Amino acid sequence: MNIHAPVPVGVLGASGYVGQELLRLLAGHPGASVAFATAHTAAGEVVEGQRLVKTDDAPLAQAELVFSCLPHGVSGRYVHEARAAGRRAVDLSADFRLSSEAVYGLTEFARPRVVTADLVANPGCYPTAALLALIPLAQRGLIDPAREVVIDAASGVTGAGRNPRRDLLFGEVSEDYRAYAAGNSHRHLPEVRASLAREGGFSGDLVFTPHLLPVKRGILETIHVPLTEPLDQDGAEGLYEAAYSGEPCVLVTRGRLPSLKDVVYRNRVAIGVVAVAGVARPRITVIAAVDNLVKGAAGQAIQNMNLMLGLPETAGLAC
Amino acid sequence: MNIHAPVPVGVLGASGYVGQELLRLLAGHPGASVAFATAHTAAGEVVEGQRLVKTDDAPLAQAELVFSCLPHGVSGRYVHEARAAGRRAVDLSADFRLSSEAVYGLTEFARPRVVTADLVANPGCYPTAALLALIPLAQRGLIDPAREVVIDAASGVTGAGRNPRRDLLFGEVSEDYRAYAAGNSHRHLPEVRASLAREGGFSGDLVFTPHLLPVKRGILETIHVPLTEPLDQDGAEGLYEAAYSGEPCVLVTRGRLPSLKDVVYRNRVAIGVVAVAGVARPRITVIAAVDNLVKGAAGQAIQNMNLMLGLPETAGLAC
Amino acid sequence: MNIHAPVPVGVLGASGYVGQELLRLLAGHPGASVAFATAHTAAGEVVEGQRLVKTDDAPLAQAELVFSCLPHGVSGRYVHEARAAGRRAVDLSADFRLSSEAVYGLTEFARPRVVTADLVANPGCYPTAALLALIPLAQRGLIDPAREVVIDAASGVTGAGRNPRRDLLFGEVSEDYRAYAAGNSHRHLPEVRASLAREGGFSGDLVFTPHLLPVKRGILETIHVPLTEPLDQDGAEGLYEAAYSGEPCVLVTRGRLPSLKDVVYRNRVAIGVVAVAGVARPRITVIAAVDNLVKGAAGQAIQNMNLMLGLPETAGLAC
Amino acid sequence: MNIHAPVPVGVLGASGYVGQELLRLLAGHPGASVAFATAHTAAGEVVEGQRLVKTDDAPLAQAELVFSCLPHGVSGRYVHEARAAGRRAVDLSADFRLSSEAVYGLTEFARPRVVTADLVANPGCYPTAALLALIPLAQRGLIDPAREVVIDAASGVTGAGRNPRRDLLFGEVSEDYRAYAAGNSHRHLPEVRASLAREGGFSGDLVFTPHLLPVKRGILETIHVPLTEPLDQDGAEGLYEAAYSGEPCVLVTRGRLPSLKDVVYRNRVAIGVVAVAGVARPRITVIAAVDNLVKGAAGQAIQNMNLMLGLPETAGLAC
Repeated sequence: MNIHAPVPVGVLGASGYVGQELLRLLAGHPGASVAFATAHTAAGEVVEGQRLVKTDDAPLAQAELVFSCLPHGVSGRYVHEARAAGRRAVDLSADFRLSSEAVYGLTEFARPRVVTADLVANPGCYPTAALLALIPLAQRGLIDPAREVVIDAASGVTGAGRNPRRDLLFGEVSEDYRAYAAGNSHRHLPEVRASLAREGGFSGDLVFTPHLLPVKRGILETIHVPLTEPLDQDGAEGLYEAAYSGEPCVLVTRGRLPSLKDVVYRNRVAIGVVAVAGVARPRITVIAAVDNLVKGAAGQAIQNMNLMLGLPETAGLAC
Repeated sequence: MNIHAPVPVGVLGASGYVGQELLRLLAGHPGASVAFATAHTAAGEVVEGQRLVKTDDAPLAQAELVFSCLPHGVSGRYVHEARAAGRRAVDLSADFRLSSEAVYGLTEFARPRVVTADLVANPGCYPTAALLALIPLAQRGLIDPAREVVIDAASGVTGAGRNPRRDLLFGEVSEDYRAYAAGNSHRHLPEVRASLAREGGFSGDLVFTPHLLPVKRGILETIHVPLTEPLDQDGAEGLYEAAYSGEPCVLVTRGRLPSLKDVVYRNRVAIGVVAVAGVARPRITVIAAVDNLVKGAAGQAIQNMNLMLGLPETAGLAC
Repeated sequence: MNIHAPVPVGVLGASGYVGQELLRLLAGHPGASVAFATAHTAAGEVVEGQRLVKTDDAPLAQAELVFSCLPHGVSGRYVHEARAAGRRAVDLSADFRLSSEAVYGLTEFARPRVVTADLVANPGCYPTAALLALIPLAQRGLIDPAREVVIDAASGVTGAGRNPRRDLLFGEVSEDYRAYAAGNSHRHLPEVRASLAREGGFSGDLVFTPHLLPVKRGILETIHVPLTEPLDQDGAEGLYEAAYSGEPCVLVTRGRLPSLKDVVYRNRVAIGVVAVAGVARPRITVIAAVDNLVKGAAGQAIQNMNLMLGLPETAGLAC
Repeated sequence: MNIHAPVPVGVLGASGYVGQELLRLLAGHPGASVAFATAHTAAGEVVEGQRLVKTDDAPLAQAELVFSCLPHGVSGRYVHEARAAGRRAVDLSADFRLSSEAVYGLTEFARPRVVTADLVANPGCYPTAALLALIPLAQRGLIDPAREVVIDAASGVTGAGRNPRRDLLFGEVSEDYRAYAAGNSHRHLPEVRASLAREGGFSGDLVFTPHLLPVKRGILETIHVPLTEPLDQDGAEGLYEAAYSGEPCVLVTRGRLPSLKDVVYRNRVAIGVVAVAGVARPRITVIAAVDNLVKGAAGQAIQNMNLMLGLPETAGLAC
């Protein structure tokens, strides 16, 4: 039962897929209300009942907390402005993820810091899945640094944004599948490395290869982990169950591997694991799935907001 | 110019996706004609202008060469029958792929043996892509056996056959993506291992993880290869170009990575490579794509038939 | 604010797409809780946290109200059983839609009757969209009975159920589109005719042609209406806005036509209209969209339940 | 057997979906070779082995016949230039379809005129399907002019071109379906009207509503035809079979209705028909399907070229 008035929040950059999802989730949130939502070229349009105002005209004073879904490189400036106006902020761009200015908001591993944060850097979509899969192993010293961790990640198209690009046309993407930013050139890799070192003490080599899936939403990562010691199927599943016992937004799928179906439209990571047979050295494969727009972006941002505002952590979220 | 009469061929098991594709390709083939095509429950139906007869009633004597697209475990018996009737055969099931009874028909590495073969075991779809990507590296001793080769493969749904299964319904597959047979439990892995040892002398560890893609046709494999010595981008691309120089059914994509678009409806493997940055030990990622129904099955079977019959190798095939 | 304890409800037949959607919606409903959920072959499976029991073992006494998502022809018997046990019921099959035993639950036109009903026949998915589009015109005498109303309807694949069928495989449906039950042979047509006569007094000819769309969920109907008198664009839009003013689950899209995006995952019909140019006699085209699983089935069932239980009509529903 | 040297042809505007398809089909054509292919911004790119040159630099003299896949409004000027240079031309834009300057190339009804034409206006994709479905009825006086012919057409996304547009992004189109240009505002309607009057003598009212399908290629039209006299199922099917007896590129599907699967990647229209039950006045529904890029564009253009050059009508085409 929510006896307080809803907290007014603002959304900078609400015309893209993440911004729209944030407005959709906030529309059903019992403890928050949207004070304003902004856009650049889409100003004037109505999204989820909100008429978008120019980002430069954002009435920051009307919100207690501000989300920014502005593009990387642009977001930082507006977030600084909101902070200067005394607003707490959750930034969904990459602008603060490697900065000491912000708390890195991988909620399950950052709760105490998020509660008191004035500025939260919301994790990237790929890193959210990779980190929730790898940190429990890293923390237990189970990842063999003498062999590389190989992460093959596949993302739905909304992960690439809503600006018109030929390579994102339906006629190009449907019935296709491709890798991109292969060879460790994706900008999310440093974010994964930094958090894995900080939270798990692991600094071995990673190979990260994202792919573009012909689906609208969802990320599935197939993570190949060389181990320092053998883990059988039961031990591997038990490890994740223990690590995430009681976590409302983590599903460990015992006896089966997760798929996008387990996570789309939910603020949840689903993790499954399988011991690898027929190889000389111990090794497991971990599958982690998130909805890139929910637990990978807008949902986790709300999860963080809930902590910052003292609301129930999963208020307004289907986990 | 084709001055000979078309060679009559038969197709056992023509009601599935591979059988239908074979009939489609044979319908446009200048040097072969379909003498008969068979099915079990679908007998009586018409596919590509051919009325399917009962497999048990196949008029083997009318064909010079017989293709079998029958299921694994069933095909062997019928192929033996065709052989006993004096017919040459190309078996598209897994029944002879690990057997000394047949020539393993990975065309690019088996030409002389295919030309004279009475029985060709047509390679599996996943192995075709993996082997064409890995053999050139293995033959040059470039794969480091001290670290595992990781193969993440994604296949379109026709790879799973045409029998009704709930998990293959559009309502289940669309907007979904998942791994299956993870942990090295897929039946294609021994086939890859055997050929890689035979053709490339490599017997190190492999980790093979197939995935189900929401597309109709096409396989893309992301193959992570630890190297015994460094290869830069130019060297890696040059290696593949040299290895496949003059090959009509292999496309090496210099300067970009292939996607399904490069291969669907074509009898072609497309291979691209990228050197991996930011890791301590040398490593490349190879991307290989095939159409699971064409170069991964019916197309390669025709390529092999062409060799067996002394026809131009790519007759009737769009490469 | 909800000061009462949640009302326990039961779900018969929860393993199909409609049953699953109902459980998903009930999981987030503030005023109802799931007392039991049943299945035939899927008994024992867990859906949305509910372990499914055998339908024949349904503990009817534990629920105040029972939903049936059982198949047509099967549902009636179980619903009668539930009624005999004193339970109120909402039947989502076709078994009572043409029967005087039940209130036909097209919510917007049946509120008073639904409130007091013991048995509600939840409308079919196609009829829901067609009726909400046509009744306002029929009630105003605007449909010309001398020319046929032509309804071309396209539905996502979940509308065809979750039982394995070859023609519903991803490999068959993806990249395909087809009509079925053409020539007025679909079972939903009598339901549309009956309601249109009862609510709108119209008994002219209809031509109804459903199509199968390569999408998971959503129905869009393109309804061609010959008019007794001219309606210009503004008049036509104004008519619908007036008819549905204040309706929480009807969206009239002025100045544009609705698409599936407007309705999926929402308990909403979206209606747009366009005056037809270049024809001799007055005519409009109406586009109506619903999510076949929500406003076309489980959502409308909950909307009806809310009325029956005295809860806010849209409790637990995103409209 | 083709004893002549291939005829050199040029392609203006080869970077879009139609131009690419034309190059793909010409690559496999036994009687034609591509002398040049052009583009505006994509000049320099390689499509199907052809390096695209600037359209303004097209070496018209090198080709005997020129195709133009340039955009509507642009094409006319370049086609005039080609004609001035003495080249015969097939224009795939809309620029000459309503002009007496060109022969309207609906092949099945225009053969003698196409054979001798210097300029052929290739029909639009929607009109090709609609006209092949309606002309046989119109020619027999079977269409009742007192009631409107309603054409609901659904097209794959390649029909909308390859230029980047937000509303054609995969993230917008996938899982969506919508009408556009409703109310008789689509530019193809006058083309249908003109041909139907010329070839069939019909000038009654049409209502044409196109829709955007989440598929790459294919058009399916559901055509509702009021009849002047009753036609039963057998009579209706027999009528089409008689009308198109011997036509290599028309498939009449007796006993079932066609779907996109019947036509994609083929130069074929598939036509099925169903008598409508339960209505007072006689009426049939005709379903017509084409691949918008093949029989709806590039394929029919080649069919016309074949006639113009005295080649077998279906040379290089899979029908």
